[in-house]
Amino acid sequence: MTARVIDGTAVARRVREDVARGVEKLLAEGGTAPGLATVLIGEDPASEVYVRNKRRLCVAAGMADHHRHLPGDVDQATVAALLDELAADPAVSGILLQLPTPEHLDSEALIARIPAEKDVDGLTTANAGLLAQGRPGLRPCTPAGVMTLLEEYDVALSGAEAVVVGRSVLVGKPMAQLLLAQNATVTIAHSRTRDLAEVCRRADVLVVAAGIPGLVGADAVKPGATVIDVGIHRGEDGLHGDVEYDAVAEVAGAITPVPGGVGPMTIAMLLANTLTAATVQQGRAS
Amino acid sequence: MTARVIDGTAVARRVREDVARGVEKLLAEGGTAPGLATVLIGEDPASEVYVRNKRRLCVAAGMADHHRHLPGDVDQATVAALLDELAADPAVSGILLQLPTPEHLDSEALIARIPAEKDVDGLTTANAGLLAQGRPGLRPCTPAGVMTLLEEYDVALSGAEAVVVGRSVLVGKPMAQLLLAQNATVTIAHSRTRDLAEVCRRADVLVVAAGIPGLVGADAVKPGATVIDVGIHRGEDGLHGDVEYDAVAEVAGAITPVPGGVGPMTIAMLLANTLTAATVQQGRAS
Repeated sequence: MTARVIDGTAVARRVREDVARGVEKLLAEGGTAPGLATVLIGEDPASEVYVRNKRRLCVAAGMADHHRHLPGDVDQATVAALLDELAADPAVSGILLQLPTPEHLDSEALIARIPAEKDVDGLTTANAGLLAQGRPGLRPCTPAGVMTLLEEYDVALSGAEAVVVGRSVLVGKPMAQLLLAQNATVTIAHSRTRDLAEVCRRADVLVVAAGIPGLVGADAVKPGATVIDVGIHRGEDGLHGDVEYDAVAEVAGAITPVPGGVGPMTIAMLLANTLTAATVQQGRAS
Repeated sequence: MTARVIDGTAVARRVREDVARGVEKLLAEGGTAPGLATVLIGEDPASEVYVRNKRRLCVAAGMADHHRHLPGDVDQATVAALLDELAADPAVSGILLQLPTPEHLDSEALIARIPAEKDVDGLTTANAGLLAQGRPGLRPCTPAGVMTLLEEYDVALSGAEAVVVGRSVLVGKPMAQLLLAQNATVTIAHSRTRDLAEVCRRADVLVVAAGIPGLVGADAVKPGATVIDVGIHRGEDGLHGDVEYDAVAEVAGAITPVPGGVGPMTIAMLLANTLTAATVQQGRAS
């Protein structure tokens, strides 16, 4: 048996095209273009690449790019003041503080200054609370991207056994909430789980977001299961995920590759969140 | 095998005694007595009993009782104004809006007016977000009470399989978060779960909060498991829970009775939250 490959690159492209059409519709109805403010601090090369891609795809979707670059030795009050300025600016629909910030800054306190309705990364405590209570809000991009992949590939979730490996605030925990909202029976496994392979083998839908290369092998996968690999690790022979791809692809029913699986979805959902934020702020139905 | 009976009445008494000692300590250090504002709307007899018990135990623990009773036909703006007044009153450490409110009122909008630091029921979106992100905050009383019972009875949680039946915002969802924070492998099951008994049988710790009398029978319990019954239903022959007590007590290692299990813990944790809120508001370590 060889798994169907879930093509995140293609789905992400369709999501971005939908966002571009949504921006056109917003403009045609007399609204203004959504604006994304990316805040980059310092010169980390990986962060620079991420931010550049976000800005490029934001502009390609017809949205305004409000980029701000601050020096790596900037103080907390200066970043806070910038975030307050962006929060008050009606042209800015969404604010993204690129993480990690330099160590001398308190990133939690900075994120807390982003108003919930402009928190397009879905990182604030306010949006975490809305998700936990099943109320409308902006969802974290990576788990939202996983949900879109599952939907696009018609993966049945109601009553399905879903297992999420990893319990980070950014991915694992919101992932579990989103799967639960679609009526899956959800298990959260993590580093203290006694027999990880046994727990994973229960899953009809297995989402691995542990940050450990090759953590999940074929022995941890039920035949026919859908396997979503959120991990991304740079090795000497290219990028790898948390899942042993070649072996698991022989057992699973469907699987995301690394690269080209979950990765491209994260930026696509950021753009979708920015459109949603703008639509709500401009008083239109989202 | 007959299960050990988890005595919630005794544990709740100890918690209330701890709270009373905490209040004395706060006063001895120059602080002021914590104050609990209970807001009751209308004449529902069950709600009146609940509120009377909360007020009585609040006073017994040395705290001030700020009760407010509004007529059942009060309008939204009047309740909102009262909540704003209590929010601004430094003598009020905690605010409890007794639920359910009459149908013509928007209880979600009312709860949203309670500041997170006075939300001693742990119901606000802000406190749900703090719990979801693993940050300090006031936790919902019933799941916090379950955690205290598990701790008092030395139930091992790290690496244990925990299953929560029910996904309410009030109990099931925060329960799962609290068990996860203690490093359990947590599964949330619910009405759409395919084979509930099979899922429950995995549990070393089984928390049932489904609101369905006798939902969980002996076939759904692993021998030796700890079974916590959050359900409470009034029948012709007295109170019953979501668990078939007599049959399950033959299989489980430990079990909470109904009444006398989780029930008494809810008010005890409300008092504990009120003391915590007062301590934080008065600028002391909690």
